[in-house]
Amino acid sequence: MFERGGKALLLMGCPEVPVQTSIALYLCSRLRRDGWEVLVAGTGAALKLLEVADPERHYLSETMNLDDCIAKTVEGEMTFDICFVFMHSDAGVTYGATIRSISSARIYALIYGRGAEEIAEMVDFDCERIAAKAVHNPAPLKAKIDKVMGWAA
Amino acid sequence: MFERGGKALLLMGCPEVPVQTSIALYLCSRLRRDGWEVLVAGTGAALKLLEVADPERHYLSETMNLDDCIAKTVEGEMTFDICFVFMHSDAGVTYGATIRSISSARIYALIYGRGAEEIAEMVDFDCERIAAKAVHNPAPLKAKIDKVMGWAA
Repeated sequence: MFERGGKALLLMGCPEVPVQTSIALYLCSRLRRDGWEVLVAGTGAALKLLEVADPERHYLSETMNLDDCIAKTVEGEMTFDICFVFMHSDAGVTYGATIRSISSARIYALIYGRGAEEIAEMVDFDCERIAAKAVHNPAPLKAKIDKVMGWAA
Repeated sequence: MFERGGKALLLMGCPEVPVQTSIALYLCSRLRRDGWEVLVAGTGAALKLLEVADPERHYLSETMNLDDCIAKTVEGEMTFDICFVFMHSDAGVTYGATIRSISSARIYALIYGRGAEEIAEMVDFDCERIAAKAVHNPAPLKAKIDKVMGWAA
């Protein structure tokens, strides 16, 4: 689907929903296996959850503050080829719309949590929607990601 | 504090709070580093969050269903030396009290989430309490664990 070796960005806001950390580490692992360079941009708590969950750094490589990431993208100091935006709230949708307006990357909107359907309706910018009502169980969202990315067995 | 090479059990119910998965994987890593054999018993969603977060199985080794674990402990089919019980709700406290009544293991009550103080007051059985008001940021709970376990730098 893509050339190997591109740059992938995972963008995440405040981690209200337990699936976020698990899906993020899964994406780090799976994308790296496909040759992607993965950068994770998030709020302090979102990054801390990832760092504590992966103390030996098998999955996580580069991380940066979410607002710095957006600022650097606006200023043209950083670019990426694909971006996964975590959306369990309207704040996530706003981040997605922001990234859409400042980057030509292919954007995947990961829509989850109790309000997944309502959030999906709010996403009116150009992106690939991957939505599941996952809150505690990451399996439905993982299955949809695997299907869209061509990772399904 | 303990001999190396004992059996450690992590016991967790439904993952309402994002810190659970991160702290569980941290404990798996840290305990294994100290020579412990670590078994994680949890609900389906709790285990799935761990499995998706650790797809290459660097941290997680044996897992089992929470109710099976309690049944096997009651029947004397399994034993362990220390047990960390995740408590962000009264269900967690009940699991802790159950384990206390059927096992002579040293028990650590990991108390977290918005209602940490109220939950801590409910814990009236013999155990080591490790409590922090952590919901999204695992750092306060991790710091208390490190202190109690002698892992602080």
